[in-house]
Amino acid sequence: MALQNDLIVRAALGEAVERTPVWLMRQAGRILPEYRAVRGSLSGFKELVTTPELAAEVTIQPVDILDVDAAIIFSDILEIPEAMGLPYEMVEKKGPLFNKTVQSKADIDALKVTDGSELQYVIDAISITKKELNDRVPLIGFAGAPWTIFSYMIEGQGSKTFSKARKMLHTEPELSHQLLQKITDSTINYLKAQVEAGANLIQVFDSWAGILPQDHYKEFSLAYISQICDAINDVPVTVFAKGAYFALEDMNALNCNTIGLDWNMNVANARSIFKDTKTLQGNFDPCALYGTEEQVKEKTIEMLQKFEGARHIANLGHGVYPDTDPEKVKVFINTVKEYTSK
Amino acid sequence: MALQNDLIVRAALGEAVERTPVWLMRQAGRILPEYRAVRGSLSGFKELVTTPELAAEVTIQPVDILDVDAAIIFSDILEIPEAMGLPYEMVEKKGPLFNKTVQSKADIDALKVTDGSELQYVIDAISITKKELNDRVPLIGFAGAPWTIFSYMIEGQGSKTFSKARKMLHTEPELSHQLLQKITDSTINYLKAQVEAGANLIQVFDSWAGILPQDHYKEFSLAYISQICDAINDVPVTVFAKGAYFALEDMNALNCNTIGLDWNMNVANARSIFKDTKTLQGNFDPCALYGTEEQVKEKTIEMLQKFEGARHIANLGHGVYPDTDPEKVKVFINTVKEYTSK
Repeated sequence: MALQNDLIVRAALGEAVERTPVWLMRQAGRILPEYRAVRGSLSGFKELVTTPELAAEVTIQPVDILDVDAAIIFSDILEIPEAMGLPYEMVEKKGPLFNKTVQSKADIDALKVTDGSELQYVIDAISITKKELNDRVPLIGFAGAPWTIFSYMIEGQGSKTFSKARKMLHTEPELSHQLLQKITDSTINYLKAQVEAGANLIQVFDSWAGILPQDHYKEFSLAYISQICDAINDVPVTVFAKGAYFALEDMNALNCNTIGLDWNMNVANARSIFKDTKTLQGNFDPCALYGTEEQVKEKTIEMLQKFEGARHIANLGHGVYPDTDPEKVKVFINTVKEYTSK
Repeated sequence: MALQNDLIVRAALGEAVERTPVWLMRQAGRILPEYRAVRGSLSGFKELVTTPELAAEVTIQPVDILDVDAAIIFSDILEIPEAMGLPYEMVEKKGPLFNKTVQSKADIDALKVTDGSELQYVIDAISITKKELNDRVPLIGFAGAPWTIFSYMIEGQGSKTFSKARKMLHTEPELSHQLLQKITDSTINYLKAQVEAGANLIQVFDSWAGILPQDHYKEFSLAYISQICDAINDVPVTVFAKGAYFALEDMNALNCNTIGLDWNMNVANARSIFKDTKTLQGNFDPCALYGTEEQVKEKTIEMLQKFEGARHIANLGHGVYPDTDPEKVKVFINTVKEYTSK
């Protein structure tokens, strides 16, 4: 069955589009009262993630309410460590917390490579979403990049410096590679299952890319992202490496279609690196959505002008912040649609 | 009285040096057992900062123990908001916390511009340190950049996104400028008092530079750093804007002597931007100090080679992490001294 709106897929493939497609990272979430209503009735974030009907419901909300050009499955990048044997809790207002972390070779050996079966609830959520979306827009599947998952497995939570995870790269490079490979194998299986269930695009989030020096980023992160890109052949792949401005040239060699840019990346510089070989996604400052409607419109046009003539998918340069007014988000989305339809 | 070792001052001024000078951000602190002994006998971090004799003692420790080429006064960038009327607590294992934050024009109007007199304890610590150092090495004074101080005043603590502070730049640009100007005026008075008391160099720390988009960084941060650089004329000034890779070209226009580079900045790129107009400081990965002594030596030489032929002050690309072995720090320092004496 053909997608009624396949703008994002065509933009990712570098094909002609009638206008620039637009969606928002974290569009399904706390900015929408409709999401908070679903979430408020539950025991916690994880009940929502692990209940396919509910995950599908909040996945589709922004398509109905905000009229974005894609849905992204409601889930978390930390489902992968959980499937491998490291469960996490989501602590309200604090973020994820792992009670057990990886400290030794024995810990790594004890982790399983998931074939995706432990994450059947995500696969089911994708199937239900696909059915309910009824091909109105594409559905994006996703996973964390192996380096970012590795960081959480070692640190057990977020960190300002990620110095424990980075210490391991220095002191135990071989063990680090073993763990990264296990994460990568799991991630490939998981993403293939997502595509099998109907995901039309895949995005890989490397949230902690910006913390590594250039040589380590190449060796311990890009090498594994590259394996993922090579393994996913049936749908376009986007790589969003937040803060990895220093790696953009190396990323040109990735076998992916789209590169996500964060809000302080220089668009002209990215265009000169990727030319017409990749689509660029981004990079509106999420804090610019705090301005007036007039300011949001003006800033959105400023952003669009920087991408004029390039392969582009409009998005923020980071996930939308929870206290953002959905009306401002609509101004952003409508401005992209109107301005680029001309 | 002449400094016995003025390598850092000469390196900052671009004069000839016999070898590359070296010091470490956060060298006075938890890595040294001698520091922990002083700190452990006190009620908390703030007692140490506000007791001049003790602040002087821990300032000098790394000169005696690690044989660095400069001391940096033991203090905190948050003394400035405290002097302006916003006191902070240092919460163990969590970081700084302000019970009152800036939320309105009335809050900004209520803040005073300090003439430095509220910070007499820092000035006294500098005077005592100068006397006890007896001109063995230069003493570095410092302050936070106005944007970083502004962020803490609005947020009340650290943040992953600093979205409240960044929201204010979007929604209240004029009020933001008022507050930034008050912070800048206070900082200039404070730094002049530090120089008056004997500080031989000044460093401005913009810890949260990397969170701003390029245009905002120029308008809300660099413009104020620039005022500080213009106001401090008697000693060399270093600007360390962590994560502000996107602003390096704009920083070339600053009236300062040295630019700090963090560990993932590309040295070749920085050299091509600053050429011989500025000294570069940095940029060893603090996590590389977790390696073996052999590895630390090898990585230090790798770093030094990137700066060969450039005006350079060796340092880390971030503050040294508290769980670092001081013996590894000594290997770093001695490698810089030996390798560049050749």
